[in-house]
Amino acid sequence: MYELGVVYRNITRTDAATADALASLGSATVHEAMGRVGLLKPYMRPIYAGAQVSGTAVTVLLHPGDNWMMHVVAEQIRPGDIVVAAITAECTDGYFGDLLATSFIARGARALVIDAGVRDVKTLTEMRFPVWSKAISSKGTIKATIGSVNIPVVCAGMLVTPGDVVVADDDGVVCVPRALAAKTLQAAQAREANEGAKRDQLAQGVLGLDMYKMREPLAAAGLKYID
Amino acid sequence: MYELGVVYRNITRTDAATADALASLGSATVHEAMGRVGLLKPYMRPIYAGAQVSGTAVTVLLHPGDNWMMHVVAEQIRPGDIVVAAITAECTDGYFGDLLATSFIARGARALVIDAGVRDVKTLTEMRFPVWSKAISSKGTIKATIGSVNIPVVCAGMLVTPGDVVVADDDGVVCVPRALAAKTLQAAQAREANEGAKRDQLAQGVLGLDMYKMREPLAAAGLKYID
Amino acid sequence: MYELGVVYRNITRTDAATADALASLGSATVHEAMGRVGLLKPYMRPIYAGAQVSGTAVTVLLHPGDNWMMHVVAEQIRPGDIVVAAITAECTDGYFGDLLATSFIARGARALVIDAGVRDVKTLTEMRFPVWSKAISSKGTIKATIGSVNIPVVCAGMLVTPGDVVVADDDGVVCVPRALAAKTLQAAQAREANEGAKRDQLAQGVLGLDMYKMREPLAAAGLKYID
Amino acid sequence: MYELGVVYRNITRTDAATADALASLGSATVHEAMGRVGLLKPYMRPIYAGAQVSGTAVTVLLHPGDNWMMHVVAEQIRPGDIVVAAITAECTDGYFGDLLATSFIARGARALVIDAGVRDVKTLTEMRFPVWSKAISSKGTIKATIGSVNIPVVCAGMLVTPGDVVVADDDGVVCVPRALAAKTLQAAQAREANEGAKRDQLAQGVLGLDMYKMREPLAAAGLKYID
Amino acid sequence: MYELGVVYRNITRTDAATADALASLGSATVHEAMGRVGLLKPYMRPIYAGAQVSGTAVTVLLHPGDNWMMHVVAEQIRPGDIVVAAITAECTDGYFGDLLATSFIARGARALVIDAGVRDVKTLTEMRFPVWSKAISSKGTIKATIGSVNIPVVCAGMLVTPGDVVVADDDGVVCVPRALAAKTLQAAQAREANEGAKRDQLAQGVLGLDMYKMREPLAAAGLKYID
Amino acid sequence: MYELGVVYRNITRTDAATADALASLGSATVHEAMGRVGLLKPYMRPIYAGAQVSGTAVTVLLHPGDNWMMHVVAEQIRPGDIVVAAITAECTDGYFGDLLATSFIARGARALVIDAGVRDVKTLTEMRFPVWSKAISSKGTIKATIGSVNIPVVCAGMLVTPGDVVVADDDGVVCVPRALAAKTLQAAQAREANEGAKRDQLAQGVLGLDMYKMREPLAAAGLKYID
Repeated sequence: MYELGVVYRNITRTDAATADALASLGSATVHEAMGRVGLLKPYMRPIYAGAQVSGTAVTVLLHPGDNWMMHVVAEQIRPGDIVVAAITAECTDGYFGDLLATSFIARGARALVIDAGVRDVKTLTEMRFPVWSKAISSKGTIKATIGSVNIPVVCAGMLVTPGDVVVADDDGVVCVPRALAAKTLQAAQAREANEGAKRDQLAQGVLGLDMYKMREPLAAAGLKYID
Repeated sequence: MYELGVVYRNITRTDAATADALASLGSATVHEAMGRVGLLKPYMRPIYAGAQVSGTAVTVLLHPGDNWMMHVVAEQIRPGDIVVAAITAECTDGYFGDLLATSFIARGARALVIDAGVRDVKTLTEMRFPVWSKAISSKGTIKATIGSVNIPVVCAGMLVTPGDVVVADDDGVVCVPRALAAKTLQAAQAREANEGAKRDQLAQGVLGLDMYKMREPLAAAGLKYID
Repeated sequence: MYELGVVYRNITRTDAATADALASLGSATVHEAMGRVGLLKPYMRPIYAGAQVSGTAVTVLLHPGDNWMMHVVAEQIRPGDIVVAAITAECTDGYFGDLLATSFIARGARALVIDAGVRDVKTLTEMRFPVWSKAISSKGTIKATIGSVNIPVVCAGMLVTPGDVVVADDDGVVCVPRALAAKTLQAAQAREANEGAKRDQLAQGVLGLDMYKMREPLAAAGLKYID
Repeated sequence: MYELGVVYRNITRTDAATADALASLGSATVHEAMGRVGLLKPYMRPIYAGAQVSGTAVTVLLHPGDNWMMHVVAEQIRPGDIVVAAITAECTDGYFGDLLATSFIARGARALVIDAGVRDVKTLTEMRFPVWSKAISSKGTIKATIGSVNIPVVCAGMLVTPGDVVVADDDGVVCVPRALAAKTLQAAQAREANEGAKRDQLAQGVLGLDMYKMREPLAAAGLKYID
Repeated sequence: MYELGVVYRNITRTDAATADALASLGSATVHEAMGRVGLLKPYMRPIYAGAQVSGTAVTVLLHPGDNWMMHVVAEQIRPGDIVVAAITAECTDGYFGDLLATSFIARGARALVIDAGVRDVKTLTEMRFPVWSKAISSKGTIKATIGSVNIPVVCAGMLVTPGDVVVADDDGVVCVPRALAAKTLQAAQAREANEGAKRDQLAQGVLGLDMYKMREPLAAAGLKYID
Repeated sequence: MYELGVVYRNITRTDAATADALASLGSATVHEAMGRVGLLKPYMRPIYAGAQVSGTAVTVLLHPGDNWMMHVVAEQIRPGDIVVAAITAECTDGYFGDLLATSFIARGARALVIDAGVRDVKTLTEMRFPVWSKAISSKGTIKATIGSVNIPVVCAGMLVTPGDVVVADDDGVVCVPRALAAKTLQAAQAREANEGAKRDQLAQGVLGLDMYKMREPLAAAGLKYID
């Protein structure tokens, strides 16, 4: 399915205000706001706890054991981007380390999402450059085969199109298509606006059963209480 | 990323002659002919050995544990189609059994490719209806939530667009985009035309080292022989 | 949770007529008839295709790498039983081979279900003694530590109590509690009685959408057709 | 095996003094004191390091992708309880987040043990509400199908009966049946009383070989030293 | 640990009579005869059921996604050899298909054991060339980087030295070091000589408990029977 | 392949200056310096973040569920050693806890690398004794079967010979054969000497494309830019 050997220099990014505003809502709320789709597989984990970011996707397709295109994608990064890296086959090699991170940061990247491995994680943690990956591995890569930059890619089971918004935190990584970003932001904000009042009630001991009026539908579904 | 709750009735299928001709070439040759992309993850396995098919993709997106849309996609099948089923999250439930297979066959389907589980595999084997799946499981599903039919889906890590060609055999499943189908067929046929002569030579004891003229590049790469 | 070092000689088996009648219905139908519970995890696979059995469970708890209790459970087998073997921790060793199978057959066992490995599978296949297991492995075991026989065990994620009915085929393994066996048999037979007529209709091209009257609820759920 | 659609309101909990005293001994010592049984599978991991708790089990059985019963179990929590959640099939969805945690805490729960996924882990970590789970995932759940509360469940391969004691820390999760809790506490305390003296000796360079008098049995087992 | 870029042309093979005689004993008996070591990990599975072979190991070390050295090892094959292929990192690509098999057969190879993927399995099955592998995959490989031939390699967790004996069947793959081959053959034959008489007794209903005189040691270990 | 029941007391360790100097270079740089071999599989993870060590390997071969030989290897530890533990089959049990760590520290060990489980990780973290393992598990082990000490072992897919250097950090674990240690140290130091200048340039926004002069070879390989 992939077009190989091409670099698209002009992509249409989601507008920055929308892309930026999604970070604070978090991946779980954004995923709900989209109708429970858009989530990358949960094997994608952050290299350190606590990072929470959003940004516009710049994509790169790499071959197993070959990180040559990482240098090509670096040039296409603009401030506010998150690099999304897909591999043409399963691989856990360490495609990315502190030198590439230095370059990505200089270009304005906020994070890397890679369906493979990463290394130098101690230094990356000190640099506070967040990476969500499938593995951590010292295993290095070669620079022999070309892939592509800024084509739609499948990363950890999810289609990511250049310019989409990526939202990532300790719970996982969500991709929001550009066309849905504004609507998703509104829906996510609406969800969250609601949560403060609910949290207060629950903290006072009100049960979800009552707050959400679940007792009747549960009985209708046949739930029986036995003393 | 997915558009939920829609059924596209009109899709543009790859022309039948091209789609049909790819079967006999097999998934490995077709995958090579595409430049080594297009392969679904190798965890997709046939429920019985020996089936080798190609056909045009009709896609369905389902939710975990819910096979309602299987009945919706059945209506969209035309003779020569292969149904490609994706799930919005990991699931190994048995979405498909002999009743649905009876319906699919009546509509002209050649196979099912599903990134989840299948059941009644003994009967499906007797019926010779091939399925490539991630799992085999007795676990049944409910019919409660709608997905979509004939939208682009990610199945076992690969993007499949309705109308693409699917080639499946004991080695795995490859997706050939419609736009590349004719060119891929040519390239695959060219590859294969070549193989008979090579096979004869190798059978007579000629080494690949000599037939492919590898001795020089291997020496140039530094390979040393030690007695 | 397990009582160690005990062998219960007297267990109450499900009556033979009920236990035997469940085989022909198959694991998928029986699992549906129970309300979609009772299934062992789908990693449990038969060592050869086509076996379909049911029988009363005799259980054995073993330690990792130790098959001593297999000889103890052999004595407790009565004709019509299926041995269900659980291990106190994950293990893929080959606990069972052709000698033990010879002994089990002599005692009247119909099958073995083991949450570990098995070996001599070529000979077991020739003997037509079916085994559902997590792994196949030449790795042998020692005889050093005692476990228990005929206590309730968790096998591949499911609680199996001695005397329950086990139904196993190419789709997987289901455990039917003794108290529910008769009711489950009725429900499963009712399900199956229904299927012939449905199959005929589907074979003639009637759609499940119409046969199951799904068009209205799908529309109510919001499904949209796009031409 | 599971009784569906029931909530048992009255369960017999292990007495609080015993249940509480097990926490400081830790899962490894308690597991040893029980004869090396009772451990949930080691894929169960804490969402943050350092939590060490014990409490009485309140159980809930859920369906894949459906957390409706989480609200039902909340009402059955009493101070000192740990909620143990099992799913009828494999699932990694995020069943539990900060709102439910707020409710659980208000009811007096000490922890959640769930054989599926959890989300809002950053907030849960800040709230210091410990969760042991199989996965972390933003993926939300629906509220459509009823399960049960306070029936015996299999969680991560172990049978947990309501009222049992759960002991959880960085090493894993152990279930102590109510009937064995007092005896296990004694055995665990006896084990631990022993350890201080041993640690001192080992710290001074005494070898386990000598302290445990292993040299003779090792020689008897055939161990040979080669210079 | 690996010496890269070398081909050892002269290796000392286990004598043919010993290497050949081990096949009929099977991997399980040979593994027992060695003291329960030497087994490759059980994820190594045959591409078709029923093959049972032994032969002398010729080894090859390859890089992920690169099968160049397969052509180099072909030249080093002598009649009676089994090629053992290790990869420097995890990979499931299809390194080997029917053309290479044709060449290997022409050189006298009996089988391939590869810690990666294989393809053309339908044709290989028709050719009756057995392969034990970790995966089946259409995914092709490149020819860009050199590895080594006939160095000691770790394949599926086991060290294999050129000239060792490999025994493979439906139960798995065992490596017998050259220095232990004669002794292992004797021990395996002795084990097997024993089995016929045991099988007869067990078939007549004699219990292993009595035949192996286990009742006393079981009682000594504390086993209790409860009526 | 393994010699069982032996303890080699005299091994030739890599000289301390070389072994010690490798720590600060880290596993990724050392792995590159060796030509991208020597890495243990990436499932080996540290029990806490931030440890970075090197030392000379003392090896131990254990059986599944049996840690008897841990006490035997303790006696063979000299200051500066790292214990490398292999198991004869897959196992996740907790072979090692705070008492053994106390003993290992008293003997001068710097770390443990074990292809199985570990427990007491909270205490080990407080003691700052680093362990790289495949699992964390409360599951205890018995002391019944002898293995070996200071024989070559395969640990997490890599051959480790006693006296080799082990380098371990957050990125993984690398084994450097004794004969290659000095040369590897030089190569690794040369690599690192280079990195400071590169990092400065990249931080200033110079692209790797230019710094490494990749534009030409990328164009030669066919890469196309599309506006």
